[in-house]
Amino acid sequence: MSDTTSQTPTTAQGPRDLPTVDITGWACPAPLRETPRVVMGHGGGGALSAELVQQIFVPAFGGELLAQLGDSAVFALGGQRLAFSTDSYVVRPLFFPGGCIGDLAVNGTVNDLAMSGARAAYLSCGFILEEGVEMPVVAGVADAMGAAARAAGVEVATGDTKVVEAGRGDGVYLNTAGIGVIPPGVDLRPQRVVPGDVVIVSGDIGVHGVAIMSVREGLEFGVEIESDCAALGGLVQTMLAVTPELHVLRDPTRGGLAAALNEIATASATGVVIDERAIPVPPAVANACAILGLDPMYVANEGKLVAFVPREHADAVLDAMRAHPLGAGAAVIGEAVAAHPGMVVARTPLGGTRVVDLPLGEQLPRIC
Amino acid sequence: MSDTTSQTPTTAQGPRDLPTVDITGWACPAPLRETPRVVMGHGGGGALSAELVQQIFVPAFGGELLAQLGDSAVFALGGQRLAFSTDSYVVRPLFFPGGCIGDLAVNGTVNDLAMSGARAAYLSCGFILEEGVEMPVVAGVADAMGAAARAAGVEVATGDTKVVEAGRGDGVYLNTAGIGVIPPGVDLRPQRVVPGDVVIVSGDIGVHGVAIMSVREGLEFGVEIESDCAALGGLVQTMLAVTPELHVLRDPTRGGLAAALNEIATASATGVVIDERAIPVPPAVANACAILGLDPMYVANEGKLVAFVPREHADAVLDAMRAHPLGAGAAVIGEAVAAHPGMVVARTPLGGTRVVDLPLGEQLPRIC
Repeated sequence: MSDTTSQTPTTAQGPRDLPTVDITGWACPAPLRETPRVVMGHGGGGALSAELVQQIFVPAFGGELLAQLGDSAVFALGGQRLAFSTDSYVVRPLFFPGGCIGDLAVNGTVNDLAMSGARAAYLSCGFILEEGVEMPVVAGVADAMGAAARAAGVEVATGDTKVVEAGRGDGVYLNTAGIGVIPPGVDLRPQRVVPGDVVIVSGDIGVHGVAIMSVREGLEFGVEIESDCAALGGLVQTMLAVTPELHVLRDPTRGGLAAALNEIATASATGVVIDERAIPVPPAVANACAILGLDPMYVANEGKLVAFVPREHADAVLDAMRAHPLGAGAAVIGEAVAAHPGMVVARTPLGGTRVVDLPLGEQLPRIC
Repeated sequence: MSDTTSQTPTTAQGPRDLPTVDITGWACPAPLRETPRVVMGHGGGGALSAELVQQIFVPAFGGELLAQLGDSAVFALGGQRLAFSTDSYVVRPLFFPGGCIGDLAVNGTVNDLAMSGARAAYLSCGFILEEGVEMPVVAGVADAMGAAARAAGVEVATGDTKVVEAGRGDGVYLNTAGIGVIPPGVDLRPQRVVPGDVVIVSGDIGVHGVAIMSVREGLEFGVEIESDCAALGGLVQTMLAVTPELHVLRDPTRGGLAAALNEIATASATGVVIDERAIPVPPAVANACAILGLDPMYVANEGKLVAFVPREHADAVLDAMRAHPLGAGAAVIGEAVAAHPGMVVARTPLGGTRVVDLPLGEQLPRIC
């Protein structure tokens, strides 16, 4: 794909119309502190979320680790490096094809830790229950958490429960935070990406988001699509066993593959070129997205990762991934380039290119 | 107070009528999994909360640490002992006299860590925002978190934001999880309590809960009562500097002093005798409780601790506490006894005794 590394992106093909390329153009016209109210997009993992974090949380909290904006904070404690991460979960409905909020809350935080190369060790768990929610629902969520934790080899070590009045919640909200240990020699962060790195995804894209959409909106796509929700710690350790020299991993959840690639491009100040035809999208997801007018690159995943791998290790890492159950569908989808730093460009099936921009919010809120 | 150590508790004085003493009597008539729905009391930190944890969460998650039911989980990682704790915060209103949900969320988790003797090092922070909440409210909460974190010497290292639709939340819900390091030689847990231990509280009881009540219910008590919300890490380190041989610390939040003492009595299988007249209750809190028919021992605190201290160290620890700004009002309120293991008994001002039982839920929900 080196023939594209110096190519200037052209006007977008397809439904998007981007006559000028301005990757800073998502900034609010006014500072966010003057934006009157929170909108759904502030929780979507896209540009609005990034603004909220960068304009309010980072200045207010003042710490250096938060400002690095990784999936996990990484710090030394007791002579070894730990990763620490948290996510709240507000998915609706609570139970969906392929999973529920409980295993999502375990796998999501285990995966955030895994993206820093950490083996997840301990999780915390905070329940916010709505008065009146059926006790078997709570028990079902808890059982799913326990099963997911055992599958991922992590212990739920501490927890908390609050109850809010009926009408002040939505059944069950969950928060998990996790601690993991990063093996010596592993240093996964976007700043390590260099032009020439090979971009690999671990399998089919867009599955979790479409699974949620199919039950939320009562849509039928002919085939039931199950969430790909899974813990990626084992796959990551398999990849690191090939070489600890992986450069960065990211799980493309909210905002999908597009947001993950944009975050890496911005933080690494390199360009990213991907080949749209190389992105694995199952036919059922492609059909659902076509019906709904969605782009699979912006749909959330929960059991997939994207890796930037030094070119000399790419074949061996790809082979190792394909030998793992959660990486059987792994594919090379692009590369890091020196041109257009901070920008993600897709080569389209028609032979043109388009800019893959950071989404403003999430196409469908509350998918995780 | 050794004259009370073998005294058999008599029928309760005052508004409670407990002709028989049955500390296991709070068990549901049916297993909780057959209880149809969650009620507010499941989040109150009392007997209903304990049942939810013991009957659903502990069996579902299956880990050993959770089953110990401490304020923090304590484990070795990287050659030193870490404490790990989480709480969600759903206090209403978001801003109250003396604080807001932001500093509460920092101090609450810092305090849970401090109760294991840990110095808090890093916090995570999960926001669940309701669509439509004013951005200055979010900024105000974040600013308060940052200020509280700096005051407590802890770094907010990682975070997450979700947004739920208007009507599905209550402005701002917060979760914090925290990691702290436990100094060598410190081993604070209820199992270390022995008869003869002196029970010390660090100051006035019932302040936070009454402060919330006064604004929630629009009540006027003549004097504005401000929450005592504060980070106790410094006070705890001051106490440990006198002797690392403290036996157990607990911050009496939900369920108040009564719940904290009952949890220690149950876990240590010792009895506890307290002198009601020795418990520091400010007149404004006493008046408010009298008006509302509440018992200050059941009202939540957020900047106080209760300590079980070996008798030979009690005077020195008390002196050190009183020399610290957050322990100026410290007082000996009772002792651990061999009689009535697992039970908390109060000597009343009239010369009788009453059983101080574990509350079923919280007298006022959503105080933290």
